[in-house]
Amino acid sequence: MPEYHAPLREIQFVLFDVLDLEGHLATLKRADLSADVVREILSQAGHFAEHVLSPINEIGDRTPPALTANGVTVPAAFKEAFDQFKEHGWVSVAAAERWGGQAMPFAVHIPVSELWCSSAMAWRSATGLTEGALLALERHASRALQSRYAPRLATGEWTGTMCLTEPQAGSDLALLRTKAVAVGEDLYEISGTKIYISFGEHDLTTNIVHLVLARLPDAPEGVKGISLFVVPRFREDGRANGVKAIGLEHKMGIHGSPTCVMEFDRAQGHLVGHPGDGLSVMFTMMNQARLGVGLQGLGLMERALQQSRRYAFDRIQGRALSAKSGHERIVHHPDVRRMLMIQKSLTEAARLLIYDTYRLLDVAEGTTGADAQRCERIVAVLVPIMKAMLTEWGMECTSLAIQVHGGAGYIRSTGVEQWFRDARITPIYEGTNGIQALDLLGRKVLSDRGKGLAELSQYLQEHYLKNVPRSLKDLSTVLKAHLELWSDLTKKIGLKALLNAEEIGAAAHDYLHFSGYVLAGAAWLRMATVATERLQRDPESSYLKAKLAAADAYFSGVLPRAKAHAEMAGAGVKHLPLLAAEDYSS
Amino acid sequence: MPEYHAPLREIQFVLFDVLDLEGHLATLKRADLSADVVREILSQAGHFAEHVLSPINEIGDRTPPALTANGVTVPAAFKEAFDQFKEHGWVSVAAAERWGGQAMPFAVHIPVSELWCSSAMAWRSATGLTEGALLALERHASRALQSRYAPRLATGEWTGTMCLTEPQAGSDLALLRTKAVAVGEDLYEISGTKIYISFGEHDLTTNIVHLVLARLPDAPEGVKGISLFVVPRFREDGRANGVKAIGLEHKMGIHGSPTCVMEFDRAQGHLVGHPGDGLSVMFTMMNQARLGVGLQGLGLMERALQQSRRYAFDRIQGRALSAKSGHERIVHHPDVRRMLMIQKSLTEAARLLIYDTYRLLDVAEGTTGADAQRCERIVAVLVPIMKAMLTEWGMECTSLAIQVHGGAGYIRSTGVEQWFRDARITPIYEGTNGIQALDLLGRKVLSDRGKGLAELSQYLQEHYLKNVPRSLKDLSTVLKAHLELWSDLTKKIGLKALLNAEEIGAAAHDYLHFSGYVLAGAAWLRMATVATERLQRDPESSYLKAKLAAADAYFSGVLPRAKAHAEMAGAGVKHLPLLAAEDYSS
Repeated sequence: MPEYHAPLREIQFVLFDVLDLEGHLATLKRADLSADVVREILSQAGHFAEHVLSPINEIGDRTPPALTANGVTVPAAFKEAFDQFKEHGWVSVAAAERWGGQAMPFAVHIPVSELWCSSAMAWRSATGLTEGALLALERHASRALQSRYAPRLATGEWTGTMCLTEPQAGSDLALLRTKAVAVGEDLYEISGTKIYISFGEHDLTTNIVHLVLARLPDAPEGVKGISLFVVPRFREDGRANGVKAIGLEHKMGIHGSPTCVMEFDRAQGHLVGHPGDGLSVMFTMMNQARLGVGLQGLGLMERALQQSRRYAFDRIQGRALSAKSGHERIVHHPDVRRMLMIQKSLTEAARLLIYDTYRLLDVAEGTTGADAQRCERIVAVLVPIMKAMLTEWGMECTSLAIQVHGGAGYIRSTGVEQWFRDARITPIYEGTNGIQALDLLGRKVLSDRGKGLAELSQYLQEHYLKNVPRSLKDLSTVLKAHLELWSDLTKKIGLKALLNAEEIGAAAHDYLHFSGYVLAGAAWLRMATVATERLQRDPESSYLKAKLAAADAYFSGVLPRAKAHAEMAGAGVKHLPLLAAEDYSS
Repeated sequence: MPEYHAPLREIQFVLFDVLDLEGHLATLKRADLSADVVREILSQAGHFAEHVLSPINEIGDRTPPALTANGVTVPAAFKEAFDQFKEHGWVSVAAAERWGGQAMPFAVHIPVSELWCSSAMAWRSATGLTEGALLALERHASRALQSRYAPRLATGEWTGTMCLTEPQAGSDLALLRTKAVAVGEDLYEISGTKIYISFGEHDLTTNIVHLVLARLPDAPEGVKGISLFVVPRFREDGRANGVKAIGLEHKMGIHGSPTCVMEFDRAQGHLVGHPGDGLSVMFTMMNQARLGVGLQGLGLMERALQQSRRYAFDRIQGRALSAKSGHERIVHHPDVRRMLMIQKSLTEAARLLIYDTYRLLDVAEGTTGADAQRCERIVAVLVPIMKAMLTEWGMECTSLAIQVHGGAGYIRSTGVEQWFRDARITPIYEGTNGIQALDLLGRKVLSDRGKGLAELSQYLQEHYLKNVPRSLKDLSTVLKAHLELWSDLTKKIGLKALLNAEEIGAAAHDYLHFSGYVLAGAAWLRMATVATERLQRDPESSYLKAKLAAADAYFSGVLPRAKAHAEMAGAGVKHLPLLAAEDYSS
């Protein structure tokens, strides 16, 4: 079974050396979370991830949940891990104190969550989605509903789901048909079929709380007619509530996560928020939900990198190009180092970027004033990039891990192929990456005439390009040119979009990718700057020197992709005419 | 079950309109194969692929071969399809007439093989590998061995395998340990363990012929000590021959192909060729074996494209960016068209390029004189590019097909996820793509000082850039610049490699990718030229107009990748230092 090692050194470098976590926690007035406390939390979480969660990851893949006469059951090991997760208090780290949670800010909670994603991504969905459901109730439900559900979700007594998708309504929720009919004061009966519901049913807990999008009888068509309801699996009187899993999807990966077809047949539920607010309530959870998927990408990248590194330093095969004889560990082959370096440079940049996005979210949500609003706007731009790029990189890095292993990478027992299969869902769920790209370019950048982007650029100048030492001037010059190109490209597409809105759709994918690679360049410039500073105090640190090497490798071996994406983003919709169906393929 | 449609219109466009198959068959003196005969062969093969093979593809994935007390058994449907494949004569299309085959040139045989790869790739390995074993015997075995084995392999009475890899010897065959000991006149006993043996054991046929690399007792170390032996599963007297499958790998994909761990325990065999010739005999099969994997990539690309197109024109979701209301088939979204167009442009370019490579192989092997030698050298350069790029594109296009489907793409019953899993082996087996890249840059390009590359470039000028109409001048200017860059890049890397051979390894991956994208550009220029000519006669053809659109989309939406690869290939090994293991990841 492949081992997982919690990357605490790296996480602490990002948190303490790069992101000034202590200053951040002071801003949030969280003196209770000293550096020592945070280190201890990370250390204990690492131990849990390594010893409890990592071993069940493969079990979930091999013996997936099953639909039985008594509903969906999960592997016993999943239940045991869940119970321990509750007992150790991990389930409630993010929840508000009034519900029994520990109210940790994202900046602390998210590094911990990364460990769960790395060690048991499919299993983690159960608690990850519960956090989302809790958040929706906390922000929009009545006090009565909150007191009924929130403490149980916060402590892991029950789990929560998000029931959005229907067979005919995926990316396009305007098409959804599930009905809600009032049957009493604030009591509704929900009927309809929902698909792709992760942990829609299971035997981890005694009850499950579904958040369900549905239409009231008099609701207008389209998204304005969608309302949100909370529907428990079992009613307060203990009786079953007309909601059950009627099927489990057979999927390529995340086998450990039961993906349910849920049938609601006059299931009793309560309205959350106002009629017609369903989608906007969902949108308040969108940032966390989408960043959560990006975090899954990071988790898989880290795990794949560890396994690649281990194999590259272990496997003996071939001899060096410069050698006459003798067999080498494969890391001595430059092409293997190339693959490792792409993995390292993407993984470590991804970690800094998403941690910082969450840090900004802490400021946006945990403070008030102009800076909070500015951070909120920057986060809005970053979210689709983080969701899409970290999942694209998750696919790339798990694929590279397979390639480093050669034939062994294709064999199940090596582990990497599972992570590759698991990774393939992440560019799809919580809004496909195509939807993220439209969200970025259309809603987040162009609709406010580039203001959010300008603020992000300003933020990068202030926080990522500050104190750049002379030794990194070359990299910083390259990066500045890319930041200018970003602005120019935005204007160019924006002008074209005034004439034809389809230009946004044609450019969005490559625009998003360009943005992601520039951000990762900024991340490497920042990490290299910090490493240079620290090397003055610690000149023999191979760890810090490796940071400089990775920054250099990123700029020469990955960043060139950015310009290609800029060129493709600038090409325009005229190159994408609609052909007749039979002319796409014979 | 996802349907497959044999793309005969497209295949015929490439064969007759672009590659002048009739002229080629005249060169080969194959007047028996008229255009009508070839069309009839393709039509019948298409029918077989659609109706017999396509339905078993999913069966192999769901109910893979099993290791039983009587050896490895395959699904009954596999056996039935195999028997029909024999009865219809498809098994013997490539084999020499003296063994009962039909001796079809590659230019005819390969389009037929593409259909097998698209419709049932895992199943196809059984006969594909048999063709390779037959070829090795035909070229290197004694007459006695040939007459014993060749007719049975040619007619599908028996199948053949290639037993190369051992646990410690994958890319590096110098490390192999299997022993051969002489026990009589031209009789040897082979002992050792081989892994990753596709169809190493099965119940499709009554006997299996293993070609096995092993060392004689007095053999020198390294690759010069490797000899090739032919070892049947059952001896001539009908007794079992000390060779059996002792395990089946559990893999990510190609479940229908039994990947066997084979134990040879004093199995009787005969020497093929001379002692120590094992690797060079294997190398004579290398072109076909590697191109065969490239063809698998093409097969999956085509199948994925068909399914993507079908879904994009069927699924209704979202409204057009330019529309106020109304829901659209998703092909109306530019980002979906972008994904379809990448698939179309890569698939159709890949088809032309690999068909032409095989056509050149026909000339190299079926004619004599200077032109044959020139074609052989061009093929030598093309083979690693075809193997690697068509398999990279196979991964990309099957992944795009998943993305076009959204959530449905991740579900097994849609089919595309199987093709994506199947595709993931192709960049690994028959020499990883990293090995292909080294082969291209080191052995094929630099070791003869760029002569083969210059001949390829000349060939492209003469055959792909000829008769370019004024309307395509822009594309042709861009392509010529890329051809010059190819030459410049080669010189630049070549000079660096004189000082440090590791530069080859550092540059090889991106050099190969650059080469692939330039070749695909040449393919599109050629197809666009032909389409422009034909449009003069057939001005309303949407098919021909779609070719022009795809050429345009390729140049604006895919070719920009080439320059990024050139930049990365030029970066140099100095950006890939060897770090300490713990500094690649914490």
